[in-house]
Amino acid sequence: MKKKVLVLGAGRSATALIDYLLEHASAGDYRVVVADAQAELARQKVGGHLRGEAVGLDAADVSARRVLVEACDVAVSLLPPALHVEVARDCLALGKHLVTASYVSEALRALDAEARARGLVFMNELGLDPGIDHMSAVQRIRHIRAQEGRITAFYSSTGGLVALESDDNPWHYKFSWNPRNVVLAGQGVAQYLEGGRLRFIPYQRLFEQYRLIQVPNMGEWEVYANRDSLQYRSAYGLEEAETLFRGTIRHRGFCDGWNALVRLGLTESSFIVPNSETMTYAGLVEALLGNGGGAGSLQERVARLLNLKEGDSSAVVKQLEWLGLFEERPIGLKNASPAQALEHLLLEKWAMQPHDRDMVIMQHIFEYVLEGRQRRLTSTLVAKGDDSVHTAMARLVGWPAGIFARRLLAGATAPTGVRIPTDAEVYEPVMAELEAMGVHFVEEDAPAA
Amino acid sequence: MKKKVLVLGAGRSATALIDYLLEHASAGDYRVVVADAQAELARQKVGGHLRGEAVGLDAADVSARRVLVEACDVAVSLLPPALHVEVARDCLALGKHLVTASYVSEALRALDAEARARGLVFMNELGLDPGIDHMSAVQRIRHIRAQEGRITAFYSSTGGLVALESDDNPWHYKFSWNPRNVVLAGQGVAQYLEGGRLRFIPYQRLFEQYRLIQVPNMGEWEVYANRDSLQYRSAYGLEEAETLFRGTIRHRGFCDGWNALVRLGLTESSFIVPNSETMTYAGLVEALLGNGGGAGSLQERVARLLNLKEGDSSAVVKQLEWLGLFEERPIGLKNASPAQALEHLLLEKWAMQPHDRDMVIMQHIFEYVLEGRQRRLTSTLVAKGDDSVHTAMARLVGWPAGIFARRLLAGATAPTGVRIPTDAEVYEPVMAELEAMGVHFVEEDAPAA
Repeated sequence: MKKKVLVLGAGRSATALIDYLLEHASAGDYRVVVADAQAELARQKVGGHLRGEAVGLDAADVSARRVLVEACDVAVSLLPPALHVEVARDCLALGKHLVTASYVSEALRALDAEARARGLVFMNELGLDPGIDHMSAVQRIRHIRAQEGRITAFYSSTGGLVALESDDNPWHYKFSWNPRNVVLAGQGVAQYLEGGRLRFIPYQRLFEQYRLIQVPNMGEWEVYANRDSLQYRSAYGLEEAETLFRGTIRHRGFCDGWNALVRLGLTESSFIVPNSETMTYAGLVEALLGNGGGAGSLQERVARLLNLKEGDSSAVVKQLEWLGLFEERPIGLKNASPAQALEHLLLEKWAMQPHDRDMVIMQHIFEYVLEGRQRRLTSTLVAKGDDSVHTAMARLVGWPAGIFARRLLAGATAPTGVRIPTDAEVYEPVMAELEAMGVHFVEEDAPAA
Repeated sequence: MKKKVLVLGAGRSATALIDYLLEHASAGDYRVVVADAQAELARQKVGGHLRGEAVGLDAADVSARRVLVEACDVAVSLLPPALHVEVARDCLALGKHLVTASYVSEALRALDAEARARGLVFMNELGLDPGIDHMSAVQRIRHIRAQEGRITAFYSSTGGLVALESDDNPWHYKFSWNPRNVVLAGQGVAQYLEGGRLRFIPYQRLFEQYRLIQVPNMGEWEVYANRDSLQYRSAYGLEEAETLFRGTIRHRGFCDGWNALVRLGLTESSFIVPNSETMTYAGLVEALLGNGGGAGSLQERVARLLNLKEGDSSAVVKQLEWLGLFEERPIGLKNASPAQALEHLLLEKWAMQPHDRDMVIMQHIFEYVLEGRQRRLTSTLVAKGDDSVHTAMARLVGWPAGIFARRLLAGATAPTGVRIPTDAEVYEPVMAELEAMGVHFVEEDAPAA
């Protein structure tokens, strides 16, 4: 019987993955089954390919799901993260491998021993971030250590951005991925390690205390700290490093603007705005000023509250103005928190237009000592999409999982159990194929100043 | 059989209540049963009084609790708020009245119809704040309305403070009540109404945007907004008022200092500090600076991060220094959040010494139109305790519940059901007796400027 890969979920994040698997289906002699709650969406993504098959599936329906899992050799789950563990249980029961691009949940991790016992590969975090970040970082870490280098600092940053040629707004940002994650980004406390000391940045200062990085030929970019930079310390083999920092890349000027939204309270999700349906954005900003800002126009009072230069001269005021936050336009959402009202507005303002191109930047900086000398290796990936459907983001998230699933179908071996791609056996071939597909890191290795 | 009042809980908040009930026991011909998990504590509080009785009780033990409730005529619950609804169920089953000084929970509110049907009085929020604030405000609101006055604005603030003669620290604050509530105060978003407009203040600006009030003969005090100023709008009959503001009173200088703690992240409860047991307070502050503050001593960097005048000249730096936040002294608490580490320190630094006197300030301001003229009524209560046990706070929390319970024992009628004290039948006699006990509001009623 022909081999089969099952792709669960045909949403925006699935396009590049499905395309990849279909393109290689003849050469690999396998079939691709795409299942989604909307059968029509699955059909569109399969696009009538001879080796493809589209089915409607209610992912919560265990028996329907198991029929599909039973018929496949490898399952790739792009379902909402909470459902991965359900699919993993199916895979355990039916003896199938599983691939996801999502973070390993505690519930999933608990299935590790069983998966090993059954000889199954449950590979996760095989997308962009998490995914390519793990693979490219560990590859270089192992390389440095193989030369007897000692890594003292590791900085790793990724951003889903808009390409410069499609950048036409004062935020220099458009959505290429989950908008909610952008709006709620950073809530809680960011922690990282610097010079051997733990550092915390509470949310209210996160977008003030950004760093700057240099991207070759593209100037300076801003980086704000991720929630937990220490998470992969031992998985990466970086126990010795005194600095560990992971962050998110944004265009110059973004963090000041976003910090203004945080200060105003527009990212608050802890309370519902009364009358949010009829309240206007200007009304919401007015309300959020509290008794602050003194006299004058709304713009002037916001500028004063935020300690900005007043009036048109402030870049931040321009950003807020461009969003329409000073307009008497109804929010139009029932029972919305400020964060939901903001997301609703951003979905419109930061939408990619059909021909817009997105851009992904990933940069690792390794400071290390080799033969007694301090050196610095900078690895930078810049990838651009073609348009709003064929995005760099969707490709870089989808391709790694696709490549690995294809390899499993072709009989490649991989470590069993619940895993992330930090084994050379896993990341070397995936990275080599990505490189062949044009996913290329520019390297700069030099003595440190 | 002699009447009996059951007091559940003999902790710090019970002293003044138990003393009051015992003092009036002979005249009222009733007995006072005090039950606490620590029988010895109950015994101390009863102090061998002939009409008192102390018992040990595990409040979670339904049958033991019901034996005590069955034997009483009125139960006063000072248990942790979550347990009030359990006691209320006992009271429903056994046909007893219930008095608490706590906020009405949804679970308790749900018992309203049953309590009414059984002719039972379940009176809550009969302490200071909530309690005396409700009663004193509604009394004045009804008085103004009886004269055909129209209230346009209502500001109400309360503070549990330290008396000036015992004020010997740069925060001008000591704990007279629940320290945890002080540390976590204001998290979320404060909302109030001003000139007909809703106003929100997010936590990160709450202690910046404080107001000032004048207390007769005691100068200016700071007031930060409470979470929900609109909560009692209809209960108070203030539907017409265009401004509704409720707040918490602090000494001048407190809010700037507390704002620094918020900005530093020391009030964060959302994450656990790794190694909190051995980490020092200076280490925690250092970590919370993130990459902010530049070069120099810890004090200098904190001052720079907070945009304070640098060095010794800043009042805020002095406040932080006085707390010991720049000292290499271990936190000494396992798995502590920054908020828990801070609370641990404050418990020591802000402890009342045996002879310290606390002070409660409550102030209502009513702006109203009478015969076409704008007027302003200011009602201010200032009460001082005798020492760290006989506090103004404990008295003002305990006396209202005690007075009301005594009246119920004496056969006074009151509206049945789950209530707060906004009926004249309830608040008039309680306020009259409080006045006789020296709880006196100073009134100033004058044409508004």
